Amino acid sequence: MHVADRLQERMDVTGSIACVGLDPRPDMIPPALAERALDRHGDTAEAVAAAFTEFNRGILDAVAGTCAAVKPQVACYEAYGPAGWAALADTVRHAHGLGIEVVVDGKRGDIGSTAAHYRQGFFGGAPTFGGAGHRTMPADWTTVNGYLGSDNVLEMTAAEPGEHGILVLVKTSNPSSGELQDLSTGDGTVAEVMATLVHRWGTGRAGRSGITDIGAVVGATYPSEAKALRTLMPDALFLVPGYGTQGGDAVSSLAGVRDDGRGVLVSASRSITSAWQAVEAPGDFAGAARAALEEMNTALTAAR
Amino acid sequence: MHVADRLQERMDVTGSIACVGLDPRPDMIPPALAERALDRHGDTAEAVAAAFTEFNRGILDAVAGTCAAVKPQVACYEAYGPAGWAALADTVRHAHGLGIEVVVDGKRGDIGSTAAHYRQGFFGGAPTFGGAGHRTMPADWTTVNGYLGSDNVLEMTAAEPGEHGILVLVKTSNPSSGELQDLSTGDGTVAEVMATLVHRWGTGRAGRSGITDIGAVVGATYPSEAKALRTLMPDALFLVPGYGTQGGDAVSSLAGVRDDGRGVLVSASRSITSAWQAVEAPGDFAGAARAALEEMNTALTAAR
Repeated sequence: MHVADRLQERMDVTGSIACVGLDPRPDMIPPALAERALDRHGDTAEAVAAAFTEFNRGILDAVAGTCAAVKPQVACYEAYGPAGWAALADTVRHAHGLGIEVVVDGKRGDIGSTAAHYRQGFFGGAPTFGGAGHRTMPADWTTVNGYLGSDNVLEMTAAEPGEHGILVLVKTSNPSSGELQDLSTGDGTVAEVMATLVHRWGTGRAGRSGITDIGAVVGATYPSEAKALRTLMPDALFLVPGYGTQGGDAVSSLAGVRDDGRGVLVSASRSITSAWQAVEAPGDFAGAARAALEEMNTALTAAR
Repeated sequence: MHVADRLQERMDVTGSIACVGLDPRPDMIPPALAERALDRHGDTAEAVAAAFTEFNRGILDAVAGTCAAVKPQVACYEAYGPAGWAALADTVRHAHGLGIEVVVDGKRGDIGSTAAHYRQGFFGGAPTFGGAGHRTMPADWTTVNGYLGSDNVLEMTAAEPGEHGILVLVKTSNPSSGELQDLSTGDGTVAEVMATLVHRWGTGRAGRSGITDIGAVVGATYPSEAKALRTLMPDALFLVPGYGTQGGDAVSSLAGVRDDGRGVLVSASRSITSAWQAVEAPGDFAGAARAALEEMNTALTAAR
């Protein structure tokens, strides 16, 4: 099934357009879990990776029926080297096994011949000596940085439309995003030029849902830009980070939604996965995450 | 010592401003080495990673006194997951042990709180449960994508000037780089705006060599742009990819050099590490790489 249709089906089944960000850090891991990992693996990257793996599995099992997708942030795992990468791969595989769509948030971008290797890292197809090929993880989508232009983006794109999806950074959620993205050019802002490219790259690649496999990252913190960007990218999935801790709310997150209610996936990380730190029974981190997610779903439904 | 001074010293000692790109792919590995890895590890990512490790060690041992730096391309390793990342870390450590400066070419870029994790992945300082911290590899420089602005770049930068260096993508060597980078804004092209930011970020961070720890990637394939960009970034190191296979030559690679002859590091990958495929005794891949590097050094010296 086309990757955008699969995501739409998942949204329909769960009634949620939320994406749970899995950005673990040692200080977000419940103490009991951290102590167990420390006992078993010593004060090492392996201990951190083992704790991330167990933490994520707990979260995933709890949220499986309540969100459309999850989004592991590669940087959090990569800080721990090979052990961290193994934890990332385990997380993606575990989510995949539960039927949750997975956005691997890597924001990769390089010249064409190199971008192909990044594509292989997240989606598979890396050549081996005997011809079997290698796939580290079965991601569904990944984020891509388009500063290098078409060479890069087209190498990250699936050969067959819908085999997997990419989400190009257009307008990011961070405070300094405007330094470059808001600059005026003869054809609108830099973000608008990027949006026009995203629309061009995605033309002819839509699934039955009407959404293509080349989408955009449009931060929840810039709702008026999101509205304008939707007119330039009518068929693109918007991954909307910035909900919760970064300051975006349900209304600002939905600024770029299509008239048919489709095309927006709203991501929250710390407000879901660290919810256990603010509740009375912190031992149940997975239950706290699920409760926070249900609250987010309710807010998003009310704002639609 | 300040990272830019260390690089300058290395250039002075070796008489070379060349950087050897370590971008291994299975079809670039000599057959004898590939067969040995296949016998030992089967048709797996581990076999590819073992072959990459052995190949790179051979290259590094051969070029140690003849180049200023090496530049592993992260994508090539990442395609093989945890095993590939272990090969990357081994390569960086081996180069470090030989006294070669290492540019880890990752082109990372994310919002501030996330960029810190990418910094930890290449330079160390990732927190662990017991407080020892973790360092996967001792890189000297990394490449950074500045599309997200200061939040990202400043988190990738070392806390102490010169502790490590970053190289921000300004004008990349690929054919489609102009789609975004050449757009005119009120303050010059997008690449020129990025260059102005690079200069601002690097102000006050120069070493005794006069070069700062926040440099730029400026492709050898766009020499007239490189000349103009130098006026905007007088104290920045230019990492110049695109020499050789991509079409850049010694003259075009040096377009951005400073009047004092400093500030340019010229990178070539396939033309060095795949040189064994074009010579009579392909068994000596390391010797062929060294010979190709010496030829590159001669061309660069003649063009200075």
